[in-house]
Amino acid sequence: MGIAGVGEFGLIDRVTARLSYGTSVLLGPGDDAAVVAAPDARVVASTDVLVEGRHFRRDWCGAQDVGHRAAAANLADIAAMGATPTALLVALCVPADLPTEWAEGLADGLGAEAALVGASVVGGDMSASATLTVAVTALGDLGGRPPVTRSGARPGDLVALAGRTGYAAAGLTVLSRGFRTPRLLVEAYRRPEVPYAAGPAAARAGATAMIDVSDGLLADVGHVARASGVAVDLRRDAFEVPRQMRDAGQALGVDPYHWILGGGDDHALVATFPAGTALPDGWRPVGRVTDGTGVTVDGAAPDGPTGWDHFRA
Amino acid sequence: MGIAGVGEFGLIDRVTARLSYGTSVLLGPGDDAAVVAAPDARVVASTDVLVEGRHFRRDWCGAQDVGHRAAAANLADIAAMGATPTALLVALCVPADLPTEWAEGLADGLGAEAALVGASVVGGDMSASATLTVAVTALGDLGGRPPVTRSGARPGDLVALAGRTGYAAAGLTVLSRGFRTPRLLVEAYRRPEVPYAAGPAAARAGATAMIDVSDGLLADVGHVARASGVAVDLRRDAFEVPRQMRDAGQALGVDPYHWILGGGDDHALVATFPAGTALPDGWRPVGRVTDGTGVTVDGAAPDGPTGWDHFRA
Repeated sequence: MGIAGVGEFGLIDRVTARLSYGTSVLLGPGDDAAVVAAPDARVVASTDVLVEGRHFRRDWCGAQDVGHRAAAANLADIAAMGATPTALLVALCVPADLPTEWAEGLADGLGAEAALVGASVVGGDMSASATLTVAVTALGDLGGRPPVTRSGARPGDLVALAGRTGYAAAGLTVLSRGFRTPRLLVEAYRRPEVPYAAGPAAARAGATAMIDVSDGLLADVGHVARASGVAVDLRRDAFEVPRQMRDAGQALGVDPYHWILGGGDDHALVATFPAGTALPDGWRPVGRVTDGTGVTVDGAAPDGPTGWDHFRA
Repeated sequence: MGIAGVGEFGLIDRVTARLSYGTSVLLGPGDDAAVVAAPDARVVASTDVLVEGRHFRRDWCGAQDVGHRAAAANLADIAAMGATPTALLVALCVPADLPTEWAEGLADGLGAEAALVGASVVGGDMSASATLTVAVTALGDLGGRPPVTRSGARPGDLVALAGRTGYAAAGLTVLSRGFRTPRLLVEAYRRPEVPYAAGPAAARAGATAMIDVSDGLLADVGHVARASGVAVDLRRDAFEVPRQMRDAGQALGVDPYHWILGGGDDHALVATFPAGTALPDGWRPVGRVTDGTGVTVDGAAPDGPTGWDHFRA
């Protein structure tokens, strides 16, 4: 049945019936607002929006995949502050002929991704719209620690990475050329594997700055460098090219480092730590912070794309 | 200049430059997430989305008006829990040819409406989209009180209203028939006057249930009746018809009570209080809670519209 047949309230009932709630949820959906625990008297909050045709295509991603991706983009922002996500709120705009199963699948994906970190979908809104749009707000808890911002990197710090980069971008290229394999890459695009726990772990280990990789590694490290007033040099040999990515790059005529250094959507975390820090599990060194400005790779200005801009892409 | 000309980051810079921050903002825009004070270790959170052509028209509302309306819809939800709003996050989806001035005006309206209650725009996201869409999430603080939900009304309670109903709906009818006056009604549609402080005041006075009027008075009182397992009878003579609304009704062939009982968008607050409660400033009695189900007016089933559904309207 299309969404026009069940109506807004009918759809909200169908979607909320599929959700479950973690211990942070003091009052869930169904009232004017939700109430969420904020144990240390602060709440971390971030919003990301996905627009069909721009951030996803229904023929490339199932409804659950889009739910996972939309949740991951937001939950990763919370983790990148060193916080633990607690709740999601979702504004969903849907064409009237969208099957209700699609909205239900989206809710399943959002809920399942949130559950990975003990968070829950606690509220939202729905409207008809010509453009399928999913705007998600994530809330999180800092556990008594200061937030890890983009601006604390200092010359001499080491730069470290948790998670994968380039996989989702390679998967997107594969899909955009009409292929469905290698599965490793396509699945990485459909459902990013985000190292959520690495965010709070980095904060506990004394990370001086942190960001999640959503615009591409060079672009996002560039945000940290600019906000901190420093330069960053990355080591190209810190990034292994997995076999499937190398093969896909050869088949499609793409340098895999284009994906690894320029691609977003994996939501890896990049952080800076004082030199000599014993990196927590899941973190590996990929470069150094120095005096100056900008981002280099092995001491040279990178060529090729350094991220993307939604209005210019 | 159109938004495609300045790009996503350029537009974000232009918009955030116009914002100011209240004391609840511990970390504002520009990082992966914002940090907002949540003094009593809980946060109230609600999301509402406005879609062009469905919730607003650019020829009927200026950019600042849309900002005021989008903020008001969310801030009213926080007030209806008995809480004080602290922060807004905004997901903005814009056609590439939208003038940057429109987005800047929207930010001004959002910020100005939030400032009425001491809240601030602390973060958000932007994307290009074929459909102009504004999704807002509001956060708030309960000040140590329990949230006032929809489900606490008890037979014998009195029903009270803070704020106006029907003004915005009448203004919308006026605009949709091609008129620009009466100004009182048109301005009520463009910029609702929400009795924000009445929400926490009702909570302090012992309100048993509360909701903001966004679907229409009968529909929203119906939500309270259903959630509480009670019936509500409203007194028609509790609602004064202002002269401009009576004149507009006569000119346009509309019974003003159609607007007053059925129209949303003014974001009045309706609450139930134990009989004998001395109502706080701004609240006036409009009916009674009884045993049973459903909503009546002067003891009879209301005729005409009882709210609207975004997929069916």
